[in-house]
Formats: sequence, C-alpha cells, structure tokens
Amino acid sequence: MRVGIIGATGAVGQQMIACLNERAYVIEELRLFASPNSVGKTFVYKGQTIIVQTVKEDSFKGLDYVLGATSNELARQYLPLIKAAGALFIDNSSAFRLDDDVPLVVPTINPLDAYQQQGVIANPNCSTIIALTAAAVVDRIYGVKSFHACTYQAVSGAGVGGMHELKDQLTALSAKQEITIATFPRQIAYNAIPCIGAFLDNGYTKEEMKMQNEGRKILHNEELLVDCTCVRVPVMRSHAIALSLHLKEKPDLAVLEEAFKNSAGIIYKATPDYPTPLTASDQDKVEVGRLRYDLCDEKGIALFCAGDQIRRGAASNAIDIMELFI
Amino acid sequence: MRVGIIGATGAVGQQMIACLNERAYVIEELRLFASPNSVGKTFVYKGQTIIVQTVKEDSFKGLDYVLGATSNELARQYLPLIKAAGALFIDNSSAFRLDDDVPLVVPTINPLDAYQQQGVIANPNCSTIIALTAAAVVDRIYGVKSFHACTYQAVSGAGVGGMHELKDQLTALSAKQEITIATFPRQIAYNAIPCIGAFLDNGYTKEEMKMQNEGRKILHNEELLVDCTCVRVPVMRSHAIALSLHLKEKPDLAVLEEAFKNSAGIIYKATPDYPTPLTASDQDKVEVGRLRYDLCDEKGIALFCAGDQIRRGAASNAIDIMELFI
Repeated sequence: MRVGIIGATGAVGQQMIACLNERAYVIEELRLFASPNSVGKTFVYKGQTIIVQTVKEDSFKGLDYVLGATSNELARQYLPLIKAAGALFIDNSSAFRLDDDVPLVVPTINPLDAYQQQGVIANPNCSTIIALTAAAVVDRIYGVKSFHACTYQAVSGAGVGGMHELKDQLTALSAKQEITIATFPRQIAYNAIPCIGAFLDNGYTKEEMKMQNEGRKILHNEELLVDCTCVRVPVMRSHAIALSLHLKEKPDLAVLEEAFKNSAGIIYKATPDYPTPLTASDQDKVEVGRLRYDLCDEKGIALFCAGDQIRRGAASNAIDIMELFI
Repeated sequence: MRVGIIGATGAVGQQMIACLNERAYVIEELRLFASPNSVGKTFVYKGQTIIVQTVKEDSFKGLDYVLGATSNELARQYLPLIKAAGALFIDNSSAFRLDDDVPLVVPTINPLDAYQQQGVIANPNCSTIIALTAAAVVDRIYGVKSFHACTYQAVSGAGVGGMHELKDQLTALSAKQEITIATFPRQIAYNAIPCIGAFLDNGYTKEEMKMQNEGRKILHNEELLVDCTCVRVPVMRSHAIALSLHLKEKPDLAVLEEAFKNSAGIIYKATPDYPTPLTASDQDKVEVGRLRYDLCDEKGIALFCAGDQIRRGAASNAIDIMELFI
C-alpha cells in the first residue's frame, strides 16, 4: 500500500501522519506534499524519515491512495493528476462533497457509499461529522426529520494559524499589548464569533448550510431540515454541538441511552457527567451526553456532543475511509 | 431617595455602584453592605466616599430601596429586616422569582408588573433577561409559542471568582503550571462546560429551566415551552444566546428588522455585522442580529443576541426597576 498526503504540513496533514503512525499496519511508501516554502521539512513515519516535496506532474504515480488536506482550489488542481495516476483521492476539502459522483462518507454511518467511488471520496465538514455521529444513532431508531444545531467550534477549524492567533491574542492581552486579528473576523480571545465562512442570501453562513446539505447526503434523506448556528469559541481543538433532534416517532430515552452505549466511535457520558471539548480532544471518539427529552417537542430529544476537530472531524475520518478498502 | 446595596463588593454590587454613578440623578443617601471581611472597604459615589458595613438589625431603617446582589440564603435572611424598614427590595437572587406575590420584571418588557409589588420585586436570571429582551419583540408581533435556546455564558456569571479563575488558569497554562479548579466544575480555559447549576430529574440544569419558568412569568404566557442548553465558555462578561423562536403566525423578516431597529434597549446588527460578547460588553443594550427564517420551522425565526451579564443581566436591570418608581 502506497499513500500520499497533500497539505502534509498543515494541522490536518500533520495529524494524518500522527494517526498513520498509531495504526497497527505499515504503509509501504508514504509521500508527503506541501507548498514550496515547506519543502525539505521532515516527518518520521514508523522510524523512517520522510522529506516533504512539492506536487509535480508525476508525483502521484504508483500511489494507491492520496489523502487531501488542502484548499478547495488545490484539491481541484491536483485531481486530474491523481486520477491519471489511478490513485483513490480521499479529500478533506469541500470542493467535491456535493458532487453526484462523489460519495460523502462517515465510516460509522454510511460505509457502503464509499464503494460507489469513481476516483474521489469526500470527507464531510468537521462539525457535520461530529454532530451526525450522534444524530445517526437516533436516526436509525426513530428517524430524524429535522434538527436544530448550535456549535461551539474550536480555533483549529481555521488550521494552525487559528490556533496561533488565539494563543497570541491571549498573550498580548495579558501583557496589555495590541492584538493582531488576521485569521478570524473579530478578536477570538475572550469572545464568541457567530460567523464562520461567508454569508449566503438566506442569512445563513456557508458553514451552517453544510450541516443540512451534507447531512442529507450522509443520512440518505433529501427531506432533512437543519437549522444551524455556527459559533467560533476560544477553544483549541475540539468542536462541541448542542442538538435538538425532531423525530418521526416519540422516543424512549432508555432505548437511546443503550444505543449510544453500544455505538462504536461514541463515548456515552450519562448525566451528571457530560461531554466537553477538553475531554474529547486527542482521541478519535465522539463524546455524547446531556441526553434528555426536548421540552419544546413531544417527538424530540436534546443532546450535547463533542469531538476532536482535527482527528475525528478530519484526519482520522479520512484514514478510516481508506481502511474501508484494505 | 435613600438606597442600600447588599452584596456591594461583588461583581454585581460594584456594577450597581458604577451604574448609579453614571445616572443623572443624585441619591440622597447610599448605604453599602457586605460580609464582615469586606467591612471598611470604600467606594466613591458622586464624589462622596462610602464605607462598607455589615447588615445589622436596624441597617435598613430610613431606606426607600434596597438592591440585592447576594445569595438566595442572605436574600431570605434579610427580607424581614428590609420589610420592617418599609423599603422596597429589588433582588437579584433567584430566591423569590417564582413567588406569586413577587413581580419578576424586565423594564422594557413588563414594567407594569412592577407596580403589583408587595415589598419585593425580583430581577430575572441574566441569560433570561438577555434572551427575552430579543424574544419579547418577536412575541409582541407574532406570538412566541416555544423556543430553542443555546447559551454561550461568560465567567462573570459566577461572580468575581469566576473571572479570576479564567485568568488564573490561562496564566498557569501558558507557564506550563498546574491549574486550580474551584469555581467551575471543570477547567474553563480553552473549554466549554455544558453544566451551569445543579441537574434536575428531567436532565436539565436549574439554570436551563429558568429560561422557561421565568420566561412564562415575564411574557405572561403559562403555555410557553423552552428547550434550553446552558454552556459556560471562556468569555469574560457578556452572555450570548442563539435562539430559534417558534411563532403563532408565519413571520416577515422585514417587519421584525424594523421592530428591532425601533426597540429601546436593543442594538440591531444587520448581517453581515453580528452581535458578539465583546461588543456587547460595558454598556446596557442587548445586541441582536443574525436574524433569519428558521429552516426547520415554517413559522420560525432564528437570531443571535448578546448582552453584558453584569450590567444588562443584573445591575442595570435592577436600577431600571427602581427608576420605575421615581
């Protein structure tokens, strides 16, 4: 098995290398690609030092899988080269997610979709992966018609630059110095920013619409309605999401508790314990808790979930997709 | 006019003194009360230095108004003394909020309720004041049947101790030292804690149920249903709340925009601008924005609001109640 990673030096790319190091199997060859200013950087994979290179015409020749951790633009640019090389492209960008011929896969939810691939499989948005990991358990039993979601999103969603910006702002503020705002649209230290991505005509952001658009594709439910509010908070690397799920049938909490406890990929935290971004960090499972009946809706339940944005929401999900083929 | 403040040295008490200093009128006498270990501390009111004292049997004699910024226990303990002195008690604790003979008042929403007082008027919960300031505008036009609320609550909600705990944890973490957890149930630096107050049998926290219980009383709607998730975030002094309001009639966004623009006590921020805790801080108005149709509900709208927890959510609201009588 030969694997390439494009965008290997970013937050998600580095996490992909770390996750591959953790897995039991050994990849025959790992090629790491990044922009020209990262060329020459080295990473260790299972004792072997790998030098970062730029993408050239024949870079993907001989590879079986290419994991993408770059922008939409670069994903589109490299796609023909990856296809020409005959490698399967598992992409983290949002470039191809809603394309009809591209499966959008969370391996614990819709693994079979992956086998419909025609050269590209897309990794969903990070908040969508984390929220749907919880929602899919409920959907399987009672059918989810719609849901309200409010996110508490970590700065890692904006990459390494976002993580540095939060730290730098906190340092500057404690030294009573001027802060720099570059990655986020407002100061993120000691703040909450209800704006992630560009605004659309309907008043929602692109990020907020992903929950409905990608949710429909992953849950195979074109009627699914999602009202989402995405908020950036001064948290480092795990997203949390409050969900109110509106169901086809009246639910039974005891049944759902059992289902969550028995779900691979979920750590169920019964009240009075609860999920938090910190406890969800640095591992691959989604924490689910605060399970209760929705006081507004006879057929509704509310819950709170949290997952590591870089791992569960990106790197690990892509590697889990790859493992569906090996 | 003679006014007393009990709990004068806490975050809310100090803010009451600051707000009284800002107002145009002059109080004839201001008496400040706190616990024995704060006795002797001084505050300046309109050029006059006032020494903090403890509450004694005859402390409230001659006062017209007593503003309460203490615990439920102390509020209950001092009530007989305040009543005996013939002063009107405007209390920030939750001790009397749901009592039948105690009006629960947000002056921009239900000012007339204040005149039903029988010696005590209660100030609502801080998140409830901020959320209802926005919700009441919608309620007046379309009637609110129920709503989903997710809060992003500042550490100031736990008083001065909460504000210190966040700063101290951030300082310790940046110096790679052990942190101390005392005020909040988990580390609050770089975290989000979906647990404010004790858990009830229905899986909600006390704090979460206040939105429905107090909301019913303030909006004069015993049928109101509220599904609330309260989350503490590493923000200093303003609470933000995402609301999805479910209405009796199909709403028109343009009508609501106009209504928000013309509401006293509200700063309306049209998209692409939006409310944030930082811009809502250190002033008395509630920021409202992110107004849009709820994608899950034909008769629903979504919005985001933010308000200074110490001022709008506590101190200023109490003083505004007092001003209904002068």
